[in-house]
Order: sequence, then C-alpha cells, then structure tokens
Amino acid sequence: MTQHKKILIVTAHPEPRSLNAALAGVATERLRAAGHEVRVSDLYAMKWKSAVDADDFPDHALDRRLDVLAVSGEATRAGRLSPDIVAEQEKLRWSDAVILQFPMWWFSVPALLKGWIDRVFTFEFAHGPAVPPPYSEGALGGRRALISVTIGAREPSFSDRGIHGQLEHVLYPLQHGLFWFTGMAPLEPFAVYDTIDVPQERFATAKRAYGRRLDRLFTDEPVAFRSLDGGDYDHDMRLLPGVHAPGTSGPDLHVRPRD
Amino acid sequence: MTQHKKILIVTAHPEPRSLNAALAGVATERLRAAGHEVRVSDLYAMKWKSAVDADDFPDHALDRRLDVLAVSGEATRAGRLSPDIVAEQEKLRWSDAVILQFPMWWFSVPALLKGWIDRVFTFEFAHGPAVPPPYSEGALGGRRALISVTIGAREPSFSDRGIHGQLEHVLYPLQHGLFWFTGMAPLEPFAVYDTIDVPQERFATAKRAYGRRLDRLFTDEPVAFRSLDGGDYDHDMRLLPGVHAPGTSGPDLHVRPRD
Repeated sequence: MTQHKKILIVTAHPEPRSLNAALAGVATERLRAAGHEVRVSDLYAMKWKSAVDADDFPDHALDRRLDVLAVSGEATRAGRLSPDIVAEQEKLRWSDAVILQFPMWWFSVPALLKGWIDRVFTFEFAHGPAVPPPYSEGALGGRRALISVTIGAREPSFSDRGIHGQLEHVLYPLQHGLFWFTGMAPLEPFAVYDTIDVPQERFATAKRAYGRRLDRLFTDEPVAFRSLDGGDYDHDMRLLPGVHAPGTSGPDLHVRPRD
Repeated sequence: MTQHKKILIVTAHPEPRSLNAALAGVATERLRAAGHEVRVSDLYAMKWKSAVDADDFPDHALDRRLDVLAVSGEATRAGRLSPDIVAEQEKLRWSDAVILQFPMWWFSVPALLKGWIDRVFTFEFAHGPAVPPPYSEGALGGRRALISVTIGAREPSFSDRGIHGQLEHVLYPLQHGLFWFTGMAPLEPFAVYDTIDVPQERFATAKRAYGRRLDRLFTDEPVAFRSLDGGDYDHDMRLLPGVHAPGTSGPDLHVRPRD
C-alpha cells in the first residue's frame, strides 16, 4: 500500500500547450492515480507578481528604508505578508514534496519562478533565527524536492565535460542553495533535453521515464549533501581539510562520498 | 589619456537608499568622472516587466502556440519586439561594457533582473543562426561584463571550500552561460559580503575597492573561458580528454589554465 502524500507542483511557462504544461499534467495525473493529493501553482495562470517590493509587507512604513531581510522577517513573524505569499507558504507547509517544473532559460529558472522563490521563501519562514538551522534540519525539513526541467540543448553539452557545465552544477543554486538550505531532500533532477522540437514518440519516451521517477518520488535516495552540523565544516562554514574524497573539487565537495 | 567608452549599468533593488543603489551611484560617478558615458537601467524604477509572454511579440497570433525560442527569433528578425525590449537591446548594442549590480537572492539574481535577461536576450539577438556563434565571437562580442554583487553571508562561506559554493561557481550561469555565451568578456566578479549591516567605515572601504576595479574596467584581464571554436571541444560540445590541467573538474574545466 502506498502511503497517501501531498505534492505541490510549481510550474512556469507562458504556453498552456507547452511541453512544460504537458509534464506538469503528467505528474498531476500520475500522482493522483497513485492516491496522492496534488496542488499546482501555475505561475503564469496565476499572474504571479515576481518583484519583491514594499507591497509584499502591508505594514511597512513607506518612509522607512526597505531592508529586505529585516522587513520580510518582521512581516513573517507578525503574520503580515501579502496574501499571495501567505497562500504559497501554506502550500509549502502542507506539502510532503515539491516539484519545480520549468524550462531552463539562461541556465536558470524563468523570472516568474525566481520571483516565486524570492517572495515566498521569506526570512523567518525559510531561514533565520525563528526556524531550524539551514543545510540540515532546515525550515522545510522532511520534504522532498524534485526539479523537472526542459532543456533546448542536447544532453552531452550538460554532461560532466559539457560546455554548459554539468547539469548538477548548473542547478546547484537550486538543489543545494534553495532545497537543501531549507532542509528539503533534493532528488536527482529529471531533465528532458533537445526540446526545440519534440516529436510524439520522443514525448512518449520522456513521459514514461518521468512516470518512473514520479513512482519513486518518496523512495529514491536523495542527493547526499553534507549537513552543516555533521562535523564536516568549520565555524566559517568551510569544508574541513581532508574530509572530501581525493580529486573532488567544486560543488561536488558538498556531496558525501558513497561508501 | 583614457579612451572614452560607453557603459550600461543594470541594477535591481527595490530600495533607492540601498547599498546596491549606492554602488550603482559610485560606478556612475566614477566612470563619468573618467570621461566615459554611462546609462543606467534601474529595473525597479522602470517597473520592468519580468515575465516572457505573448505581449513581448506584438505580431504573435493568439491562436498560435507560443514556442518561445521560435517566436522570439521571428520577432527579433522582423524587428517586432515590444518597445521596452528593443530599448534595452539598443543599450546593449551601444555599450562597450555592461555592469550588473544586484543583491544575491537565493544564490542568483533577483527576479526582475532575471526577467531582464529572459526578455532582452532574445533568440537571433543574443544567440542563433543570424548572429555569430556562442562561446567565442558571440552576438555581443567585444564587450566587457562585470558583476557587482552584494551578499549577506560572510566571505569564507563562498570560498573554494565554502558551503554555499565558490562564488565563481555559483555565478557560472551568468559569467559563462550569459556573458561568455554571448561573446562578452566577463571580469572577476566584485562582491561585498556581510551586508546585513554595513557601517560607514566598511562602506568606505568597499567604495574604494570598487573604485579601483572600475578604473581597470577596460584593462583587467577577463576570465579566460575556453572558446568553443578553439579546438578544445568535440562536436557534442564536450571538453576533449587531456585538454585540462590534472586535478581540474567541474566549472573550472572551462577555464584555460594559466601558463
């Protein structure tokens, strides 16, 4: 028996007939068919506001300097954030897993999705003294996180020697800096490459592959990022000498070596 | 005699009294005092629209699927992009150097700046068959590019062993994926750390350091990213075996070793 879980899918593509919309649909159907609950934040359909500004904090006095960290922390603690932010924070709290479905634009998320991250992951909600520490327990600990990304380029260009950078490294700011920072357990990203033109047959293959990943959403081993409190880092948050496997450098330093 | 140059500063912070606004001001003054021309795109002041959508392409038929790459390429070739995009493309073409001034939010640019990138760097303007090839000559070749970023965390956490990732790796999607991809010569980023609270004295130090970097904007050696057409990559855009220095991995593979 599969345990009933709650999944939040956040998607950002301007075209409802896009591959991204189709993949969000695949996930919604597949997960519901497995008995899970699914909510979708379709940022384009929601006309999501992407800019952090004073309107996010209804109590903010206009003559006061908008120090984003401080002001967002105060507003979060006081429960005085704009309603669209509160609604997304509630979805995150409700969820057992979060899926970000997006087209890779300029080696990152579309602006609307960045605006969802910037505005929803407020100080004292996603990090800060009022919540558990980052890179370990985390404010959103206990949740899984999956990136499902469509990429125009072909796969070799995102391989370990690919010119665009290894996919895991390009996504490090999200996998490690967003998910793992807030305590979520990031899974290996699911990527569909070569998406300039996707014939039916290739879409069917991608759909099957994605289906298999979705079936294992709660059983796949997450990326083994190191815990900040696990004894691997010094007080300046630097990895201690000798902790990593020989020959490892860059973002891979922060992944625990396999036994 | 300094040669007269043209610099575009793009900045994105909601608070006109912010450190970011101050640094944009420092750059504007310093560069003008040196005899250069400066234009500033202050994205919050401009109320920049960050979402790529059908409104960007006035000729786009609403019953047609919005395939972003194809539609933006056609609109670019036809000279039929929305006027706000055209204005920014003209500034980029006008410029000899581009400075992005921003606070690091979630290990990347604020959503408004991502929206400037997503919307302005259209297909057939920034890359594509109609312009010179990427990672070498590039659509915007001949220009220099500088990131000036403010970071709440302290510097060691962004060092080579820092938990957040080495700054150069965190910024790889911009330095290599945006600037170098389009042929711009990226300089080492300028970063001010520990910006939760910046006393006057520390601001004065940062201002002096930034001033020195600005004075060398056209003379500093850019990051030595490898050219795609330099014989280092195979036809699948993978770095050839044996080309890199021993012990190098990850994003550093794509930087030419020093002699």
